[in-house]
Amino acid sequence: MGGADRAGSADRADLPEAGLTVPELQRRLAEFAAVRHWQQFHTPKNLASALTVEAGELLEVFQWLTPEQAADVMSDADSAHRVRDEVADVLAYLLQLCTVLEVDPLRALAEKIERNESRFPAP
Amino acid sequence: MGGADRAGSADRADLPEAGLTVPELQRRLAEFAAVRHWQQFHTPKNLASALTVEAGELLEVFQWLTPEQAADVMSDADSAHRVRDEVADVLAYLLQLCTVLEVDPLRALAEKIERNESRFPAP
Amino acid sequence: MGGADRAGSADRADLPEAGLTVPELQRRLAEFAAVRHWQQFHTPKNLASALTVEAGELLEVFQWLTPEQAADVMSDADSAHRVRDEVADVLAYLLQLCTVLEVDPLRALAEKIERNESRFPAP
Amino acid sequence: MGGADRAGSADRADLPEAGLTVPELQRRLAEFAAVRHWQQFHTPKNLASALTVEAGELLEVFQWLTPEQAADVMSDADSAHRVRDEVADVLAYLLQLCTVLEVDPLRALAEKIERNESRFPAP
Repeated sequence: MGGADRAGSADRADLPEAGLTVPELQRRLAEFAAVRHWQQFHTPKNLASALTVEAGELLEVFQWLTPEQAADVMSDADSAHRVRDEVADVLAYLLQLCTVLEVDPLRALAEKIERNESRFPAP
Repeated sequence: MGGADRAGSADRADLPEAGLTVPELQRRLAEFAAVRHWQQFHTPKNLASALTVEAGELLEVFQWLTPEQAADVMSDADSAHRVRDEVADVLAYLLQLCTVLEVDPLRALAEKIERNESRFPAP
Repeated sequence: MGGADRAGSADRADLPEAGLTVPELQRRLAEFAAVRHWQQFHTPKNLASALTVEAGELLEVFQWLTPEQAADVMSDADSAHRVRDEVADVLAYLLQLCTVLEVDPLRALAEKIERNESRFPAP
Repeated sequence: MGGADRAGSADRADLPEAGLTVPELQRRLAEFAAVRHWQQFHTPKNLASALTVEAGELLEVFQWLTPEQAADVMSDADSAHRVRDEVADVLAYLLQLCTVLEVDPLRALAEKIERNESRFPAP
């Protein structure tokens, strides 16, 4: 799960496509909101509410499905679109909340994984 | 957890630090679960539930605060830790859900921003 | 917790209107579902998911409002209708969950208030 | 808010036990908050947030369970207590929200059931 070689970089297989990194998406979201004068609404409390609302909308896709039906949800084009759309909404509000609070979401997750590795030792 | 030398690439200003990309974190989360035999629990429906539960825990930090107090939440060390911890949990379940459903979360968000640009034209 | 005197009882000022008690509404919800063969979907896990989804929809009404706007939400006919509609949905799933799990929601709340009275003594 | 026939009333089998009606519980909750000077926190927006948070905590009980395990959740004393406790919290915030907004939750539900009877005709 390397780390040494971030470098120049034929060897970074998953080097992200331009435009598709978390900081770039955060910048686009901030610009999108600024141009529309929506920043006034993007308080931490409102964004945390919106995040929860969108997580609920994502859960709604699955709420009446059996485990088997839920596992197959992407094979239906409409459901697949809805899932991607709600994933995007959840991520959008999470990233905007992180921007406003100056939290680095990827670093927060990496640190949490490390804490969990101590907390739940591998068998 | 360095950072200085992101390299090659004067033209990719925000080239991510090694280990801190979405696909790498998804791999670490998958490995973490596999080693502990937790994959059986990580059905789409369960992960969507867990995501909503964690979004609620993040909202809980803000629920009784005034907008002013909420805006200042990171200046208290305990609250700041709690926010980062819950952000990490939300992101962890979102990424695991995306792994299981084979959704690319960054691409889903980029496409959603594009749809929103048509839907809400800039003034 | 009383009980003896449910009684004839001119002194029970808030004796509920016929049809508007929790057990009667639980019966109507159960019958509504049974007639439509929806009981198969009303597992505890699905109902707990649906409850959370509907709570999110109720929160959605308030998510971008200032505290002042939120306090005034019932003065707009459309918002007022939406609030009542979402309150009904939350209550419907909560009562159906209680029916399926054989939990008495009013008794659970009365007992919780008593626990909270010890836990948070009045000043 | 009539109720012509609330009656003497051997024919009202489920006449509620004293103390265990929605309006009485709403009064107790209001008094509990007033005595502790918590009413300042009980804005509609905060209560709608708290409701969603508690719904998430109720869902948390079920999130990793199979449908079969979820159906059996009340046979374990600890889980049963947790379910009743979270049901009480959800109901408490829902009722407090209704008090603040002057919404009658039982009437809202009765009216919703009627709308649903037209919307989803019985087969």
